[in-house]
Amino acid sequence: MTKIVIIGGVAGGASAAARARRLSEDAQIIMFERGEFVSFANCGLPYHIGGDIQDRQKLLLQTPDSFLARFNVDVRVMNEVISIDRQAKQVTVKNLLDGSEYTESYDFLLLSPGAAPVVPPIQGIQTPLTHSLRNIPDMDKIIATLKTNQPQHATVVGGGFIGLEMMEAFHQLGIPTSLIEMADQVMTPVDREMAGFVHQTIQEKGIDLRLNVALESVIHHEDNNSLTLTLNNGDTLETGILIMAIGVRPETTLAANAGLTLGELGGIWVNEQMQTSDPFIYAVGDAVEEKDFVTGQQSLVPLAGPANRQGRMAADNMLGRNESYQGTQGTAICKVFDLAVASTGKNEKQLKRDGIEFEKVYVHTASHASYYPGAEVVSFKLLFAPQNGKILGAQAVGKDGIDKRIDVMAVAQRAGMTVEQLQHLELTYAPPFGSAKDVINQAAFVANNIIKGDATPIHYDQIEQLSADQVLLDVRNPAELQNVGFIEGAINIPVDQLRQRMSELPKDKEIVIYCQVGLRGNVAYRQLVNNGFKARNLIGGYRTYSFAKR
Amino acid sequence: MTKIVIIGGVAGGASAAARARRLSEDAQIIMFERGEFVSFANCGLPYHIGGDIQDRQKLLLQTPDSFLARFNVDVRVMNEVISIDRQAKQVTVKNLLDGSEYTESYDFLLLSPGAAPVVPPIQGIQTPLTHSLRNIPDMDKIIATLKTNQPQHATVVGGGFIGLEMMEAFHQLGIPTSLIEMADQVMTPVDREMAGFVHQTIQEKGIDLRLNVALESVIHHEDNNSLTLTLNNGDTLETGILIMAIGVRPETTLAANAGLTLGELGGIWVNEQMQTSDPFIYAVGDAVEEKDFVTGQQSLVPLAGPANRQGRMAADNMLGRNESYQGTQGTAICKVFDLAVASTGKNEKQLKRDGIEFEKVYVHTASHASYYPGAEVVSFKLLFAPQNGKILGAQAVGKDGIDKRIDVMAVAQRAGMTVEQLQHLELTYAPPFGSAKDVINQAAFVANNIIKGDATPIHYDQIEQLSADQVLLDVRNPAELQNVGFIEGAINIPVDQLRQRMSELPKDKEIVIYCQVGLRGNVAYRQLVNNGFKARNLIGGYRTYSFAKR
Repeated sequence: MTKIVIIGGVAGGASAAARARRLSEDAQIIMFERGEFVSFANCGLPYHIGGDIQDRQKLLLQTPDSFLARFNVDVRVMNEVISIDRQAKQVTVKNLLDGSEYTESYDFLLLSPGAAPVVPPIQGIQTPLTHSLRNIPDMDKIIATLKTNQPQHATVVGGGFIGLEMMEAFHQLGIPTSLIEMADQVMTPVDREMAGFVHQTIQEKGIDLRLNVALESVIHHEDNNSLTLTLNNGDTLETGILIMAIGVRPETTLAANAGLTLGELGGIWVNEQMQTSDPFIYAVGDAVEEKDFVTGQQSLVPLAGPANRQGRMAADNMLGRNESYQGTQGTAICKVFDLAVASTGKNEKQLKRDGIEFEKVYVHTASHASYYPGAEVVSFKLLFAPQNGKILGAQAVGKDGIDKRIDVMAVAQRAGMTVEQLQHLELTYAPPFGSAKDVINQAAFVANNIIKGDATPIHYDQIEQLSADQVLLDVRNPAELQNVGFIEGAINIPVDQLRQRMSELPKDKEIVIYCQVGLRGNVAYRQLVNNGFKARNLIGGYRTYSFAKR
Repeated sequence: MTKIVIIGGVAGGASAAARARRLSEDAQIIMFERGEFVSFANCGLPYHIGGDIQDRQKLLLQTPDSFLARFNVDVRVMNEVISIDRQAKQVTVKNLLDGSEYTESYDFLLLSPGAAPVVPPIQGIQTPLTHSLRNIPDMDKIIATLKTNQPQHATVVGGGFIGLEMMEAFHQLGIPTSLIEMADQVMTPVDREMAGFVHQTIQEKGIDLRLNVALESVIHHEDNNSLTLTLNNGDTLETGILIMAIGVRPETTLAANAGLTLGELGGIWVNEQMQTSDPFIYAVGDAVEEKDFVTGQQSLVPLAGPANRQGRMAADNMLGRNESYQGTQGTAICKVFDLAVASTGKNEKQLKRDGIEFEKVYVHTASHASYYPGAEVVSFKLLFAPQNGKILGAQAVGKDGIDKRIDVMAVAQRAGMTVEQLQHLELTYAPPFGSAKDVINQAAFVANNIIKGDATPIHYDQIEQLSADQVLLDVRNPAELQNVGFIEGAINIPVDQLRQRMSELPKDKEIVIYCQVGLRGNVAYRQLVNNGFKARNLIGGYRTYSFAKR
């Protein structure tokens, strides 16, 4: 009989417990959770606050009773493991209800403690109106503050998943909201120019979005339940509730105190079997460092999908199987009002930081046949290795079909496909669902044109630095220039007139072509180079260029 | 200067013309189309009839003028190529407007003639009220018949893509409709049990669905613009318009008359470069036989995606590149009212016919986190090789997220992934979009449990043949049995009571377990086998079993 002790009863821990029991009827399985709840829907918390999920009960996926009945797991909520004695293979547990302490032995121990919201040491930050959101009690407290105080303004610090979701929740509740973000963009998994689409939507919804600025100090006015926030640019802000959502930090105290190896990034080190430096102790989820699928380097990726699959795998390995975790791509998605923004693999910022050579393409094309109602633009960025076409990462933003395109890319990347192979993907097509040449096929065509030398790209961030030997050519129709804007200094020759008017262009300069999204630009590019001109085409067109500034 | 002559101006032909021009400014490109229109949205035709696409103009993606302006392609509509002289490398063309004939030489010829609707020699079938739907004039004629005659009833023969789409179009127009299908199911790319979900929806919408029956004869009553249809079961049907949509046949007359090799299935034979048996003649699209991606055998797959990509590739190869077509998976999707039904790879019928060994799993799980509004059940079937876990095919039906799951499977299959690898897929997850363990991960878990011997499956079609040594156990809650039905003769022990009540089950018989979708059944299965029972679990549960009968 194997005795398995699990610390933490949410994603990874709960998955491990259920899997362990399915593998073994006679294992003894004890799951400690210092909170009141196990296996709750932590990703659903902001949606209950905002009202999308009306019934709080729906967030409680399992209870200690249901775990016992179905999986014969001894779930002990309000019981905190306070130390691990690796020598004796036992843990000391504090019963938070009565303060008593006791020990419990284990054959295998699983750490699934998660990660805690980071609250920086900002002057005055600790107030009754300051919240973070990690679990059900946090959520209940936020709801109580909203009910009791009826704040007339909310402030969210941090433009990541939880920050964006809380921003939207407040907006749904009709509370004017400020979003403060220290970086120059929200949703850092995507690159700055892709975040531009999100910034526009956020601002259109009336959110007071403040980028490149940090919270410096907080003053609590008890008389009227308000806060004065001072930002590092000198601005001040009166607000009624403050959500701190700048990120999370792995919970490693217990592991560190037990002498388990931590990684360089501050997470618990594990091998591919999810085993810590102590072979009898496994760890999974937000608390551990994982191998990045693309670079092979250590990474911290606090996401639910990996946590769940790692939990299942740790159970397999504790019970004698040999399963390996195959790295994390960091596939992620966030709903921001009617937009979805998603990514997989590495982004351009990370590739630059790691010194990995890359090329990139952008396409902006319809989520399904544009003649069928409901089609929306998918703005898609593909990052790849210019030498061998290996997929490095992908990002997408839009109102329809975003999850699908990033899922396709996540599979293709995991399978080791190249952008050459992406051309051949045979994806579902009927007018309500896709196009005969899907977004992904189109992006692959553009990427392969570059690899094969059939296209010479220029990117949105190079347009401001054109030399005297370059001429800017806008190949859209004049009405488009008027309606959506244009780049100062461009000559305008619509693509369909180009063959007739080619003589207007200088042969001794490089023609930098752009259109709205890059497609007509490519047609013009091919005409020009096949007629002996030097040329480049702005990948992603004016749309990429203009949204990068938002 | 290369002279390229293209026969057929829709998907494959139009793609080839545009690509050829992008590769070469000085190629001469002539595109012959015997109809009035080029590059029209043939997949959109039923949706214009039904009213989803209001503006007929939206179906006309390109015109001869637009092709000339942008791509300098000489498009000749109403010009039919009537013969090919391979020796002289020239075609004879008939101008359908004035009846004149002329010849045109070529360096390379591309055949993209498409496929024609099959209209079998049924007695009396040729009436003014009998239609098929392939192109704009066909669509216009159907609309004219509807406007002029205001039929009170419509009949569609054939339950494939066009048949289903026309059925829905008539329903949207408020016309009572019968759908006649000779097979025991509509939408043959999926298997019979998956089609059950579609049958239910069709019937719920009030369509008179008649399976296993064929049209035998037609009598036209000119006095009241009606038809009497007699079916091969003796039934008769009065109707006002008849759509024949039983399938299509490759247009090979021109190719056959020119002595080009045809394949065994009746399509034009081509190699991987889309070259026919004459190296100066290429062929693409619905008219050609392609290599099946899974089996490597020849196949006929009249779908838009392959046609478009083949056209592009043929242009590459005519202009000196060397691109290979990498086989067709037959990825397909159809909207049927609020359902989507989709598939990729081989189905069970084909695998059985080809003698390919397979195993299969079903899951029925939420399209996104079930606690977030709008989640719908995805019913998913995965076919795989039991020895090595190779993906053979996948099918899905449901109201949300169907295209996404089949796209994921289409990529995974094309990449050569196994069901083992599917477990590790890291797909987008946030409550509005997915689940931490996606449908695909879950199906992979079930498949791997079978491969590793952690699960012993039984399938819905084996339930009627249980032996005296088998006992049926329903592990759902009693209320579920009352509400959704149960299998006659089953013992009912809810899964959460099973540990306590195990003694009620015989150890000398095999326990055949089922629940609603297979998940609790697996929990029960593990309990029983780990306690020394022999057991099997009904994969896909009662839901698969019951819908197979619809």
